[in-house]
Amino acid sequence: MSPSAPAARNGGAPRRRALVIGTGLIGGSLGAALRARGWHVTGSDLDPDRAARALALGLLDALGDDADAEIVFVATPSAVAGSTAAAVLSRPGRRADVVVTDVSSVKAAVVDDVTHPRFVGGHPMAGSEQAGLDGADPDLFVGASWVLTPTADTDEAAFALVSAAVSDLGADVVALTPADHDRLVAVVSHVPHLVAATLMNAASRTAESHGALLRLAAGGFRDMTRVAAGQPSIWPDICADNAAAIVDALDHVLADLAAIREQVAAVDRAGILSMLQAASRARRALPAGITRPDRLAELRVPVPDRQGVLAEITTTAGDLGINIYDIEIAHSSEGPRGVLVLVVDAARAVELRSAITGRGHACTIGELA
Amino acid sequence: MSPSAPAARNGGAPRRRALVIGTGLIGGSLGAALRARGWHVTGSDLDPDRAARALALGLLDALGDDADAEIVFVATPSAVAGSTAAAVLSRPGRRADVVVTDVSSVKAAVVDDVTHPRFVGGHPMAGSEQAGLDGADPDLFVGASWVLTPTADTDEAAFALVSAAVSDLGADVVALTPADHDRLVAVVSHVPHLVAATLMNAASRTAESHGALLRLAAGGFRDMTRVAAGQPSIWPDICADNAAAIVDALDHVLADLAAIREQVAAVDRAGILSMLQAASRARRALPAGITRPDRLAELRVPVPDRQGVLAEITTTAGDLGINIYDIEIAHSSEGPRGVLVLVVDAARAVELRSAITGRGHACTIGELA
Repeated sequence: MSPSAPAARNGGAPRRRALVIGTGLIGGSLGAALRARGWHVTGSDLDPDRAARALALGLLDALGDDADAEIVFVATPSAVAGSTAAAVLSRPGRRADVVVTDVSSVKAAVVDDVTHPRFVGGHPMAGSEQAGLDGADPDLFVGASWVLTPTADTDEAAFALVSAAVSDLGADVVALTPADHDRLVAVVSHVPHLVAATLMNAASRTAESHGALLRLAAGGFRDMTRVAAGQPSIWPDICADNAAAIVDALDHVLADLAAIREQVAAVDRAGILSMLQAASRARRALPAGITRPDRLAELRVPVPDRQGVLAEITTTAGDLGINIYDIEIAHSSEGPRGVLVLVVDAARAVELRSAITGRGHACTIGELA
Repeated sequence: MSPSAPAARNGGAPRRRALVIGTGLIGGSLGAALRARGWHVTGSDLDPDRAARALALGLLDALGDDADAEIVFVATPSAVAGSTAAAVLSRPGRRADVVVTDVSSVKAAVVDDVTHPRFVGGHPMAGSEQAGLDGADPDLFVGASWVLTPTADTDEAAFALVSAAVSDLGADVVALTPADHDRLVAVVSHVPHLVAATLMNAASRTAESHGALLRLAAGGFRDMTRVAAGQPSIWPDICADNAAAIVDALDHVLADLAAIREQVAAVDRAGILSMLQAASRARRALPAGITRPDRLAELRVPVPDRQGVLAEITTTAGDLGINIYDIEIAHSSEGPRGVLVLVVDAARAVELRSAITGRGHACTIGELA
């Protein structure tokens, strides 16, 4: 699980080496978080002033490229993330086992661009309305979900390395297929963002003729429109990359809102109450935050030595909302078979085992101390 | 401005007397807030256990009715607020100058039920997802806007008394016509609430087949759906009482969302960016909280001694989003004319004077120390 780290150039202790390409809010926070955990971090940005500022702010150790980096985080705008990752992987002189990941909000578009066993698509579900380096925070990822999107081509060791690195930053790893990720973030992030902006614009229009409106904007309205203050410039790419899933989710919201409009117009008290009761129950059941489980369990899945099983098993866990706290491939000394070892919440181990055996794999559970 | 207070029954100091009908979250908080400012507060509730609990929690001084109360707050469910207020005003034995106000979220329905010069419709824009007495808080109204809805029938002294009482609880008074109030809260409160519930239900449906969804619900989604956790039972009445304004505001939101859906489907980057930029600007311009002005100014408006001018002048201020910090009627010793004295933010006094003179009234500004 812990690849040996090369000795740092400027000190006695060995430091693992990372490269961060793109030093905005996420890239800068990644630099700070990795440095705080002992990594040597090199960074670059298309805007050299921004990279220099990241260095000056202590978010990086060095500027430029690092051929010795064992992991490369591509934190560029999503439109160029795929081509940047592909360029990193094809550049000669880099260490042969380098692993590349990205942080784009839409995954299928990027993952389709980089079909390489050592590219693992990623999406940290953390951010801030504060754009750019001023919001950079070494603890930005603590307690956040970090989606990884392995495919049939993904190398197990590459997945395990990215998974361990982002877990070490305090994030909880959730494995999903790129398509599932994109469908879910449309529902839980992209459409809510567009709706928040719509509500804000509607209120703003009304405020032009009724100055009192903003006086009446109490906490609920402020909560609902807070995300609309965020950086608009990232959204055209997100909407373009995830257009189909966003349109689909918007169609459901439009249909639901049209139904409520009819209920209000018809003064259908029972229908309104039932809709709001369902929402209230669901909102109260939403976990206040992701908590670390009390106990962990180890699932061991013997797998044939072929690609694709890693993605199948890990995304089976992800689709159940089960985090992966650790992952390892133990290769058998006898023949081509290995064992995939997944560490998950002990309370959900039986459920996950059922799902895995339901897919035709054997699976045993061992509880961890 | 300060009516003389009757001596309290249980002590030496004179205490002003208030009656609170309905001891839920708002009524209980009102009791606590008034008591903290020296009032004697009697309370009642259709549910005698709830009233008794409010007494036990120290939110009230006494249970039952109080014929000597100078102000009565009707904090019942909105469906019975109008009839309750009317019953208070018509009940014999009560002091002749009693003033009644209510706290319902929709105003035209209540105000139409109680056309009485000493009834002043009100709506404190404060609340909590926590329903009932457990959320009762003497500071619930500090910094909140409190809408008052005077009509042509409203007595100036009654308006001044309610205005002074709620200002003393820390609220900022905004005067609006009942119809304007209802239109604005549809945009800024009722429709956002229905939208929050819709987003929560859409996510909940998706989570049934994709357990990972709730793992991906980051801060933005939590913010947007927080209000949906609130008490559903009050909403059928609100939707019924404000159906026309809600349907109208929902139609605008539906049309805007349908337009965005087309922009996303057509990958209209410029259109998406422009919509989000407008929303971001508007959200950033939304005041973080209502701040007390640095300086106050006094506007003096000579008014003929007839009803209706109070509502006209105060709602002119409200429609500009200008709070009323104090209000008084100075009656002239010569003839039937009086002078309405409004205390407002000095920075907005000239704007308000223009609006008032534009309506054919004279108006002079005097700055307060």
